[in-house]
Amino acid sequence: MGKEEYKPPKGMDDIGPEEMAIQDWMTTKIRKEFRRYGFQLVEPTMVEEFKTLSAKSGPAIKDEIYYFRDKAGRELGLRFDLTVGIARMVANHPRWPLPIRLGAISSMWRYDQPAYGRRRWFFQWNVEILGEKDVLADFESIAVGIDIFRSLGYEDFEVRIGHRQVAEGILKGLGATDDNIIELLRLIDKLQKVSREEILSGFEQNGFSRQAGEEVLGTLMRGKEEALLAIEERFGDVNKVKNGLKDLRELLHYFEVVGMKNFVTIDLSIVRGLGYYTGPVWEAYDLKDERAGALFGGGRYDSLVGLYGGRDIPATGTAGGLLRAMMVLKQRQLIPSEVTPKPHVFVVNLTEDLIDDAMNITRQLRNEGFSVVFNISRWKARKALDYANKLQVPKVILIGKKELEENKYILRDMVSGEQLLLTLNEIISRLRKTFQIS
Amino acid sequence: MGKEEYKPPKGMDDIGPEEMAIQDWMTTKIRKEFRRYGFQLVEPTMVEEFKTLSAKSGPAIKDEIYYFRDKAGRELGLRFDLTVGIARMVANHPRWPLPIRLGAISSMWRYDQPAYGRRRWFFQWNVEILGEKDVLADFESIAVGIDIFRSLGYEDFEVRIGHRQVAEGILKGLGATDDNIIELLRLIDKLQKVSREEILSGFEQNGFSRQAGEEVLGTLMRGKEEALLAIEERFGDVNKVKNGLKDLRELLHYFEVVGMKNFVTIDLSIVRGLGYYTGPVWEAYDLKDERAGALFGGGRYDSLVGLYGGRDIPATGTAGGLLRAMMVLKQRQLIPSEVTPKPHVFVVNLTEDLIDDAMNITRQLRNEGFSVVFNISRWKARKALDYANKLQVPKVILIGKKELEENKYILRDMVSGEQLLLTLNEIISRLRKTFQIS
Repeated sequence: MGKEEYKPPKGMDDIGPEEMAIQDWMTTKIRKEFRRYGFQLVEPTMVEEFKTLSAKSGPAIKDEIYYFRDKAGRELGLRFDLTVGIARMVANHPRWPLPIRLGAISSMWRYDQPAYGRRRWFFQWNVEILGEKDVLADFESIAVGIDIFRSLGYEDFEVRIGHRQVAEGILKGLGATDDNIIELLRLIDKLQKVSREEILSGFEQNGFSRQAGEEVLGTLMRGKEEALLAIEERFGDVNKVKNGLKDLRELLHYFEVVGMKNFVTIDLSIVRGLGYYTGPVWEAYDLKDERAGALFGGGRYDSLVGLYGGRDIPATGTAGGLLRAMMVLKQRQLIPSEVTPKPHVFVVNLTEDLIDDAMNITRQLRNEGFSVVFNISRWKARKALDYANKLQVPKVILIGKKELEENKYILRDMVSGEQLLLTLNEIISRLRKTFQIS
Repeated sequence: MGKEEYKPPKGMDDIGPEEMAIQDWMTTKIRKEFRRYGFQLVEPTMVEEFKTLSAKSGPAIKDEIYYFRDKAGRELGLRFDLTVGIARMVANHPRWPLPIRLGAISSMWRYDQPAYGRRRWFFQWNVEILGEKDVLADFESIAVGIDIFRSLGYEDFEVRIGHRQVAEGILKGLGATDDNIIELLRLIDKLQKVSREEILSGFEQNGFSRQAGEEVLGTLMRGKEEALLAIEERFGDVNKVKNGLKDLRELLHYFEVVGMKNFVTIDLSIVRGLGYYTGPVWEAYDLKDERAGALFGGGRYDSLVGLYGGRDIPATGTAGGLLRAMMVLKQRQLIPSEVTPKPHVFVVNLTEDLIDDAMNITRQLRNEGFSVVFNISRWKARKALDYANKLQVPKVILIGKKELEENKYILRDMVSGEQLLLTLNEIISRLRKTFQIS
């Protein structure tokens, strides 16, 4: 029999120390933004009853998720997003005051084909404001997404805001019906991926003349605020368009008020999440590399929470993938050098009888907040330094009998090889200058 | 048809805002201790191949976990601990320098009966030192557990340290054989739960005389360091006992060296994890309420990592449940009052036209680091204050036209009802005194 291989399941990569240090740094920043905006952190169960998952997306979702039965025969599934759990939690707590702001940063699973930057097990941050229909709630959902990326040191992106009602209204104004409107929206959703010609021919198959198709693409793709006026003139008598344009204008105004206007733009071709978004929808893209996909996205979904019982509750929210964000930050070299899992210091006793001293020094440096390991393998100097190199620890403290008699220690820099004879206090003050302690 | 109920699956409670705020505070402290001790944070996959899970615990584990097949027929399972994944990760990375210190704080699942303080989906912290057989590695594993609880403000516990080899050696010295030793250890493992009489009768069923049984209970239960001498005299010629006693003596010495001696004691009746622990084992108990169960526990397991391929790697580690720790901290009222999911401030414009001002004030207070929400529902004062009460937000800022003309705002304390007319700078300096900003 060949040797057994034990690996993570396909597409469910372990998060190793290097990636985890970055993820931990990111999630700390994200939690801080959540807190500033008053979003209360929650963690809905990762395993949901299948009926909860299918209530949002229909039974066909079974093919796209991890579905199983427990030993009591219950139909269960691994969650595929954080919105379902948060919406269900709010439905389960009728006494929570509304509007309520909830946030989560956690992992989920989808049974699709793994690819570069896409895993079957992945992490997202997610904010939801439930119980408020005013566009101010959408504003807050978008603004926190912008501030999350800014807090990570990244500002080279824009949020493209569309509106489901405006897009629908324009299409209806041009002759779309309840029968073909979803199909038409689905075509528009593909704008970034397929050619203009394919979209037009798709429109023709749905009974739109070439001219009407051109007008849709012209109107929706023209984007930008200038288009709003033209749309109003042409479709302003369609109620959906009128209300949607009012939402968009207000959003632009509020971003102006708080000085974040340069991060947002209107793009009516954004029509994501056709199954449940009902109002404004948005996606944020890197300004230089939009093919990398959306950095975050979201929208208003006024019909979801009601599915989970009790009240009809309007809601809006934003979510973004941690891996996507990490890739962008790495590419732009925006991850600070202190974001590393490596210990700061390795303490080595040069003779075996000094192990107690090594432990004491270690203890004192840890009390100062430094990340410190000591020579638990009781190696001699050469082997210990070899290990320090492999571990990529930047500083080593060597404890020798002679030096100890003068209350001094050797501080060795592992990059330059420089060695200094110093007291512990001198070492501490040097380490304080080298390393940030949080 | 009755109304559908959407709830979390049995025993898989959502973590709501209040519990999550405490969990987040705890995990931040725990991550900091991990870092001080040089443990690198990882997150192994939560879904493992079933063969990986059963390699540790045998195929019977299937009955105790969530087991399922994916659409390609792969046998999978939800992980039941963090040790398996960490051990497999190390086996998968033959070039990682050893010893390596890895830590994780995350969730897992077991299919057992939910009870108070025990859920089917639960969170643990876990540290492992892999690649070092020296007892110094065990020392570090125990010490970080002690420091985790101390950093949470809780010192009223002791770590009881036993040793698998010593317990086995004593039993063998009294006539136990390879055939009955596991059964005898299992009886000892029950010491805290069943009567002395039941243990003795169990021993008799395994061919131990009443006298030998009494001697086991006498020796093992006597605990404390004084017992070590007596054990050495009686069983010191058994190799396992001799080596194990040396480990225990060294551990006590090192805890003395770093000034943590008062947190540890010897208790040879600690024989947990019979399937895979091979050396020192330990459990920490509340000094006043040990029936609450272990606060953390761990031990040396030198045979596990080799199961996952490649090298035989000695290892040692400690794990503790977040819920258990949280219950103890709550009971002792050790959770600081600032650990709350509630926003600090609610900003209310008294007339609708002042919404832009509310947004601006909100923005400025958020920039100072405060957790701030504003009147996104455009409520009038009375309804807004009613909401502030329900939300339990401690401070409200009221913006009125008249006050604004003097660049002043009303700061209202929601507990006392006190209202002050202040400039924004005055408000900020008051809020700084009231709230801790991290």
